[in-house]
Amino acid sequence: MIRFECDYTEGAHERILQRLLETNDEQTGGYGVDEHCEKARAYIKKACGSENADVHFLVGGTQTNTTVISSILRPHQGAVAAVSGHIAVHETGAIEATGHKVLTLPSDDGKIRAEQVKELYDAHWNDAAPEHSVQPGMVYISQPTENGTIYTKSELEALSQVCRACGLPLFMDGARLGYGLVADDNDLSLADIAKLCDVFYIGGTKIGAMMGEAVVIVNDALKKDFRYMIKQKGGLLAKGRMLGIQFETLFEDGLYFDISKHAIDMAVLLQTALTKQGISFLYHSPTNQQFPILPDRTLKALSEKYTFSFWEKADATHSVVRFCTSWATKKENVERLIQDIQALQ
Amino acid sequence: MIRFECDYTEGAHERILQRLLETNDEQTGGYGVDEHCEKARAYIKKACGSENADVHFLVGGTQTNTTVISSILRPHQGAVAAVSGHIAVHETGAIEATGHKVLTLPSDDGKIRAEQVKELYDAHWNDAAPEHSVQPGMVYISQPTENGTIYTKSELEALSQVCRACGLPLFMDGARLGYGLVADDNDLSLADIAKLCDVFYIGGTKIGAMMGEAVVIVNDALKKDFRYMIKQKGGLLAKGRMLGIQFETLFEDGLYFDISKHAIDMAVLLQTALTKQGISFLYHSPTNQQFPILPDRTLKALSEKYTFSFWEKADATHSVVRFCTSWATKKENVERLIQDIQALQ
Amino acid sequence: MIRFECDYTEGAHERILQRLLETNDEQTGGYGVDEHCEKARAYIKKACGSENADVHFLVGGTQTNTTVISSILRPHQGAVAAVSGHIAVHETGAIEATGHKVLTLPSDDGKIRAEQVKELYDAHWNDAAPEHSVQPGMVYISQPTENGTIYTKSELEALSQVCRACGLPLFMDGARLGYGLVADDNDLSLADIAKLCDVFYIGGTKIGAMMGEAVVIVNDALKKDFRYMIKQKGGLLAKGRMLGIQFETLFEDGLYFDISKHAIDMAVLLQTALTKQGISFLYHSPTNQQFPILPDRTLKALSEKYTFSFWEKADATHSVVRFCTSWATKKENVERLIQDIQALQ
Amino acid sequence: MIRFECDYTEGAHERILQRLLETNDEQTGGYGVDEHCEKARAYIKKACGSENADVHFLVGGTQTNTTVISSILRPHQGAVAAVSGHIAVHETGAIEATGHKVLTLPSDDGKIRAEQVKELYDAHWNDAAPEHSVQPGMVYISQPTENGTIYTKSELEALSQVCRACGLPLFMDGARLGYGLVADDNDLSLADIAKLCDVFYIGGTKIGAMMGEAVVIVNDALKKDFRYMIKQKGGLLAKGRMLGIQFETLFEDGLYFDISKHAIDMAVLLQTALTKQGISFLYHSPTNQQFPILPDRTLKALSEKYTFSFWEKADATHSVVRFCTSWATKKENVERLIQDIQALQ
Repeated sequence: MIRFECDYTEGAHERILQRLLETNDEQTGGYGVDEHCEKARAYIKKACGSENADVHFLVGGTQTNTTVISSILRPHQGAVAAVSGHIAVHETGAIEATGHKVLTLPSDDGKIRAEQVKELYDAHWNDAAPEHSVQPGMVYISQPTENGTIYTKSELEALSQVCRACGLPLFMDGARLGYGLVADDNDLSLADIAKLCDVFYIGGTKIGAMMGEAVVIVNDALKKDFRYMIKQKGGLLAKGRMLGIQFETLFEDGLYFDISKHAIDMAVLLQTALTKQGISFLYHSPTNQQFPILPDRTLKALSEKYTFSFWEKADATHSVVRFCTSWATKKENVERLIQDIQALQ
Repeated sequence: MIRFECDYTEGAHERILQRLLETNDEQTGGYGVDEHCEKARAYIKKACGSENADVHFLVGGTQTNTTVISSILRPHQGAVAAVSGHIAVHETGAIEATGHKVLTLPSDDGKIRAEQVKELYDAHWNDAAPEHSVQPGMVYISQPTENGTIYTKSELEALSQVCRACGLPLFMDGARLGYGLVADDNDLSLADIAKLCDVFYIGGTKIGAMMGEAVVIVNDALKKDFRYMIKQKGGLLAKGRMLGIQFETLFEDGLYFDISKHAIDMAVLLQTALTKQGISFLYHSPTNQQFPILPDRTLKALSEKYTFSFWEKADATHSVVRFCTSWATKKENVERLIQDIQALQ
Repeated sequence: MIRFECDYTEGAHERILQRLLETNDEQTGGYGVDEHCEKARAYIKKACGSENADVHFLVGGTQTNTTVISSILRPHQGAVAAVSGHIAVHETGAIEATGHKVLTLPSDDGKIRAEQVKELYDAHWNDAAPEHSVQPGMVYISQPTENGTIYTKSELEALSQVCRACGLPLFMDGARLGYGLVADDNDLSLADIAKLCDVFYIGGTKIGAMMGEAVVIVNDALKKDFRYMIKQKGGLLAKGRMLGIQFETLFEDGLYFDISKHAIDMAVLLQTALTKQGISFLYHSPTNQQFPILPDRTLKALSEKYTFSFWEKADATHSVVRFCTSWATKKENVERLIQDIQALQ
Repeated sequence: MIRFECDYTEGAHERILQRLLETNDEQTGGYGVDEHCEKARAYIKKACGSENADVHFLVGGTQTNTTVISSILRPHQGAVAAVSGHIAVHETGAIEATGHKVLTLPSDDGKIRAEQVKELYDAHWNDAAPEHSVQPGMVYISQPTENGTIYTKSELEALSQVCRACGLPLFMDGARLGYGLVADDNDLSLADIAKLCDVFYIGGTKIGAMMGEAVVIVNDALKKDFRYMIKQKGGLLAKGRMLGIQFETLFEDGLYFDISKHAIDMAVLLQTALTKQGISFLYHSPTNQQFPILPDRTLKALSEKYTFSFWEKADATHSVVRFCTSWATKKENVERLIQDIQALQ
């Protein structure tokens, strides 16, 4: 079985494993205050052009979203997100479990627009009795989105401007951030993101690491006591250096971007070939998630050799599915998939 | 600097790293449903003599305690624990963050007694208006305790009996379980624990793994929907096999017990030598944490070469400190420490 | 200013005040275990034809919804409700504050249908990885709804049947239940409701009482420890008899229904007259909330003499507003309103 | 049966009932923004000498404590309180249910000392890894305490000074505040309290009202969005004027203090008489709760005519019990009780 159902089917990049082996006998203090974590922090801050940022390493995405969001909001506030946002649909109510509503905005492509945020904000504050409903307290976006799309620089600037005008911290979930940063269409740098967001995270789990997400807190007002929050929410890894070593390896010389680029190359290869075959896609995704619309009988046949995710029914005889490429995807497997789809047409 | 301040100063056991390397290119599904996790589950169930148990892999201890406890209690119930229990003092209120009070019992040595639980239970239910206070809903213990002590079989039997009579699920935090199981004084097997507790976990982080705790749910009533709870509390690792591979390695042929034994040997070496030097200990610990009472000037000198944890002041000129050994402790370092303490007397 | 903006603009029914005066010097125990509460419970159980029900008195609606819902759900479960349900939009995230997501279903009229619940339930359980999303754990409905509409007996039967088949407790928010029970279109009795729901409440605040809601728990599985939940959520009134006396008065001889009928008469008077004037309504409401669509200039003029609630814009020059009648509405005020609207056409 | 078991056995002061009758037909807006609430706010602010304070009316004590505390703390913070504090023992974990630990300090008499708070604060911040434990985030005290004792002005000044130095908001639970303010020993005025605390509440339920507590927020930093919190925690009474009218009546001409004085007179009468009879008391209480130590056989006999609360066993044949007087206590009943105790000696 060749797996395309998600972007975490393999282990870790070999250089990460190598580094773990080399450093294995070192003795370090726990909980992320060792030298590897310090180096990784320095590399990341440099990559973000943000020497004053705080960088924290957590283990996984749901944990990171929960920790960041519950650290920011007061009890009567909610997080604004796309109706398809990860926190809205795929985290088993983790945000609600910390007491906060996710205030959803409609979205066809996973992105939310500055105007939508402004409208929601105004609707709340223009209500005769706003205290009877949840106050919008921050904005959550994903880059790339759950649909593979990415915000352009001007879209993010507009969002950022509205958020700042409304006093709403802007948080970017970057579980797949690398794949967004190196996408062909992309015009946003890490430094732009650090300037436009208040806090964001750089995903490791889906891009070469065993596990690990690097939270970058840019806004000073959000930095206070964040380590307490990581500890309380179960994200303060005892052997914190395991995270530090991985991010050190990924960021010391650009490995993170190089391996992200490979995933994009593989996705473009797939997209281009399928498009040539006359297949259309649900979303315009320049990143590692591709959502072709395929005949159900084709999918049935494919499912004997490949794994992929069912997304939704397109019509009576077609479905949208998701294929993910990743840093670890083998070109021969993508080519085989392309041929097999071709053969099944 | 030679580190004795905790039992997670090194990386992972070399066989674990080796196995991670060997399996790195495999493609597996996410979230702990792969073959490595399945094998690890089978090994652990066998080791516990409990084929019907459910085994889940989580990342860290605080996360595991929070997930298990919040999965069991109704909102008006609390978890009974020693006043020194990890959940009571060292988890930044993680249990309270899920809505539950920790109901503490006094303890000199980290253990709680069956009679204490019974008394607390009776006091609650004999109150004229019990609904004005938190209802005891389960019992939490650690084995070994935070003080290095261990429950004997008869103590655990008594606790288990009271818990069952009172309808209180008994949960054992086994962050250092291996060190307890191979201690000289110990008369409790994994199978005993599986029979006497309703749920417990086998700690990996402190015993050879990079990270990872294996929750064993024995009581059928506590099994339902546990994966939802892991996901919501941020513990469902995307690359779940990383945990599976580690526990597979630790349990396929007894590695877990072998390396635990090494830590105990090192602790006994230290304890015996210091006792000979006339040094006394705060707790009678047969496990890997040792709590000698030393002159402050000795400690000051030691702190230039060694790390250890300050525990509490003993008197005006002495303090209790904690030295931890582990699976990774080098004998030469223990011997050096013994000599240095001797020299400083 | 004549008030129609809600159904709690006056104090309490005079017979309630009279009874409070008569009983004022009595000494009773606190927290709802006095004789008045007992009598009120007996009257209510009789009215519901449900001798085995548990009846509890709470102070207000949001508190009651929160207490009931958080008492039923496990942490990973959510409450299914109409997108316009009170818990979804008008309780400042009170449900989320107890850790639970409100899973909303689209609704044009405030009601949800049995098929919708079944679809949501099936969609969850047919998901390949249901544990990544919130599990539907119960169903919340309002009778009458926030739009003034009411469930018919056959609609409630269908909902009840689906809920029981799916293992989802059905909870009816009856903040305005009296107004539903005596509406012309209604074919549901209290006894029907007690048979078809697992738990519901009979609203007092909006129907003659100063404050107070009577929760009726029919399903044995939901009765356990409910008083703990009331206490924890701040609803266990110290002078609990204040609630008991009010419900005793309302239910000893049908006062609750008589005064509900008055509100309906007033609503029908208004609806009939406005309909004759050619005015249309947003919802078909047979209860005390009426939602006419009126020209903005008419509303502007009316607002100098009357209070009412803005609901939504209908078009560029018209708006939907809400007029509420209640047990205390004076006929002369309704007639004056009708004339004034007529005059402004 | 003559009741002394608590201070809420009767209804409301007759002037309150009278006022409710007089105002019953008025139409007002809901949720505490009516003229009666406004007047009550003005009276209270004047009584506190604090024109800039925010005053909010809530229904009951547990609700008020929960709302205030959860409004102030961030998720990783706890409320410091006496081990016997109401929030620590008698609110069914309501504070924990909002996610916060109650950090308890030992106390023999219900009071906590400035030095204790300082020590706890220093211990937390001197810890090598404070983020592993709950951060003290505010201080909760009761005046009078649950033991009937009261803080002196100099004690409160010392507490206030430490709290401000440590950045810990000081919150006073004044469920029985009136009884403290008019006690013979008392040297604290409402104005002193408003100067020394950041937020406090003036209890109505136990002093003449049917129900109701008036929260006074003095510290500007704690005022923001408090109405959202009241709504979310279920305390925003729809007919909010019911609370306003009661506090208006209690504070327009000093009724609150007059009826408080009556309770104190009755308590002193009892205390003086029992002391003369050679009976001793567990606490030195100058307020309306008295804790005599009586022979168990005396108590048994008394319990046939009187209700009172069992407090704790004093020795094999004696118990401490609690007798409460209140604004409603009849002198003849106290005299009868005194005689009966005398007769039983």
